[in-house]
Amino acid sequence: MLETCITSVRNTVPLVHNITNYVTVNDVANILLACGGSPIMSDEPDDVEDITSVCGGLNINIGTLNRRSIEAMFLAGKRANELGHALLLDPVGAGASALRTDTAVRLMDELKFDVIRGNVSEIKTLALGSGTTKGVDADAADAVTEENLDTMIRFAKDFAAKAGVIVAITGAIDLVADADTCYVIRNGRPEMGKITGTGCQLSGMMTAFLVANPDRKLEAAAAAVCVMGLAGEIGWRNMRPEDGNSTYRNRIIDAVFHMDEKTLKEGAKYEVR
Amino acid sequence: MLETCITSVRNTVPLVHNITNYVTVNDVANILLACGGSPIMSDEPDDVEDITSVCGGLNINIGTLNRRSIEAMFLAGKRANELGHALLLDPVGAGASALRTDTAVRLMDELKFDVIRGNVSEIKTLALGSGTTKGVDADAADAVTEENLDTMIRFAKDFAAKAGVIVAITGAIDLVADADTCYVIRNGRPEMGKITGTGCQLSGMMTAFLVANPDRKLEAAAAAVCVMGLAGEIGWRNMRPEDGNSTYRNRIIDAVFHMDEKTLKEGAKYEVR
Amino acid sequence: MLETCITSVRNTVPLVHNITNYVTVNDVANILLACGGSPIMSDEPDDVEDITSVCGGLNINIGTLNRRSIEAMFLAGKRANELGHALLLDPVGAGASALRTDTAVRLMDELKFDVIRGNVSEIKTLALGSGTTKGVDADAADAVTEENLDTMIRFAKDFAAKAGVIVAITGAIDLVADADTCYVIRNGRPEMGKITGTGCQLSGMMTAFLVANPDRKLEAAAAAVCVMGLAGEIGWRNMRPEDGNSTYRNRIIDAVFHMDEKTLKEGAKYEVR
Repeated sequence: MLETCITSVRNTVPLVHNITNYVTVNDVANILLACGGSPIMSDEPDDVEDITSVCGGLNINIGTLNRRSIEAMFLAGKRANELGHALLLDPVGAGASALRTDTAVRLMDELKFDVIRGNVSEIKTLALGSGTTKGVDADAADAVTEENLDTMIRFAKDFAAKAGVIVAITGAIDLVADADTCYVIRNGRPEMGKITGTGCQLSGMMTAFLVANPDRKLEAAAAAVCVMGLAGEIGWRNMRPEDGNSTYRNRIIDAVFHMDEKTLKEGAKYEVR
Repeated sequence: MLETCITSVRNTVPLVHNITNYVTVNDVANILLACGGSPIMSDEPDDVEDITSVCGGLNINIGTLNRRSIEAMFLAGKRANELGHALLLDPVGAGASALRTDTAVRLMDELKFDVIRGNVSEIKTLALGSGTTKGVDADAADAVTEENLDTMIRFAKDFAAKAGVIVAITGAIDLVADADTCYVIRNGRPEMGKITGTGCQLSGMMTAFLVANPDRKLEAAAAAVCVMGLAGEIGWRNMRPEDGNSTYRNRIIDAVFHMDEKTLKEGAKYEVR
Repeated sequence: MLETCITSVRNTVPLVHNITNYVTVNDVANILLACGGSPIMSDEPDDVEDITSVCGGLNINIGTLNRRSIEAMFLAGKRANELGHALLLDPVGAGASALRTDTAVRLMDELKFDVIRGNVSEIKTLALGSGTTKGVDADAADAVTEENLDTMIRFAKDFAAKAGVIVAITGAIDLVADADTCYVIRNGRPEMGKITGTGCQLSGMMTAFLVANPDRKLEAAAAAVCVMGLAGEIGWRNMRPEDGNSTYRNRIIDAVFHMDEKTLKEGAKYEVR
């Protein structure tokens, strides 16, 4: 029934406040519109409490954090918590710098997140203090594979239990877990890694899914991952020989724009463990 | 004769300084190039007075305002006024936060704008202190419709008279008015609302039209609205079944790139009231 | 043998730290991925030293500089120098404001750059204090032409010798020179000037080429210029009648995505002087 989550988004047009990096922010806004949500961006401490108050959810992405936006993250996050809004953390580059790791850890300590979504190296950094983040990409040595799948499912559930969150670890195989249940998702294309910001886009879209499906957040988070991966597959099928990663970016968002329950039901590839 | 305004832009290549949000800034730059202008962006107080001095117009957009950029808006705006440059305000999200509303009001008080362009909720906020801005989108309850058109034309002219500006209220029906005359424009497609930043793009492009047509600013502002809406129609006709909002964004800017007097004359749908 | 430089990039996936403007940053990230590199952006002083340490090169672009990012440029640049990383300066708008000119000059004084890449007006500003930068575009009066080519090659070599750098002056004819040798490159299309950020994109990509080809940096810089220009030609051939500058942007990055040694060898148009 995961596929009905997108209909909830389209029916309710959730307004999502994004404190996110300036690299991929335009694509985040357009994918939020594509899936049926509505984006607003604000990272000024004097502005964010008002803005987040009129929204249903808050997506915090530390991709190009700075002193001012960090202050805004805490102010907005506290307000979002007070109001019971959906709250998501995308710890971009955790493990690549002390500021990023420390900020992500402090955000986890001081705020109550519904979901933390990152690549495996970022999540390992937060869980173990030992991820080997290579810039903003996961290290191949950390990857979730068919061989280490049982171990990684255990890791995801344990982290979810300890942190009191839903964790979404995305890569070739995606894991979306709470303490008890793990969705193992096999949608997507390797070429998505050649586009900047597919992870950021997913985090923005996932926040809309959480807002629109408050009573089934694990399923909503998994549905967003399926939508993104399936859009990657559909977008790839629409590629012509001369198209490359810049056009692929458009085609993925376009595929989200056309995504409906039927397409999602037929295309989602997941198991529940 | 509104259609000749774009030829003036192409012939004079107006340089436009934009203090604008980081969400849609790339599209603003590309649409300025598409229409025949030239964009430059700067939002550092130590930089903006020099930069605006070499330009012909200044586009102030408060979409992701912060303490630093607000300071820059006032410094650049004052310099632009001293030099007699075209000056436009896009009050993104006025009504959605105190900071945005207050900043827009202060900018209107301290600077002399040629045009204020926003959605109807933003303009109502500035005019009445009572818009019901929903994030960065207009509230449906505020919309200009065929039913309330006479009232809204009166509202636009009154606001223009009181504020001493040209006001451009954009939505399904667009109004561009000074105290005496109102262009009612019916170009555009509803799908444009599924792209982030069509309003921001219009504001950037309109500033170039103002610079290039200093003796007929009302007509120039109306022409820019027609170009944007008509580009939305042409871009939509060029959509293939698999295309969605991300590709639509490109197609609209592409249509502006090809816009000429003949196309604009044939496609512009407006009446003067 | 210039064409083998791109293979080095694809084989080594150089991680490039970019302190760059928020106008064109997304395209910079995507072109870095397209050519085989990996981008990371950070402009917070508390973050940049860690980030640049895990990278192989640093691309400093002053397009939307501010007090905070200027501080970050010096901190990151000094660390990059200490670590022997490739370091590139893109002096966007030098000559258009005192802050931009002064910052570019101070960066040149305090840091050891491998390459300075800009348009001819920007480079003349740095070399002579007399460029006539018009916003972020070169002044036509400054342009490198077949008529003044010998003089401009001499100028480029002299600047390279005096500043102790490789200089890349890009325009209709591109010059890439050290003190002794100048590549004269005639790839590209005039329509590239109607897209925002082709220069910024080139600077990002060139940094990856420098990282991946440490023993032949002049050749690597020239190869990056050929790739960009050739991608502009290929992208243009793939344009359909309705396509304009926004789609052209995608097609250029797409062409870089497909660029290989064979295509580059056949398409690069350069002479060594």
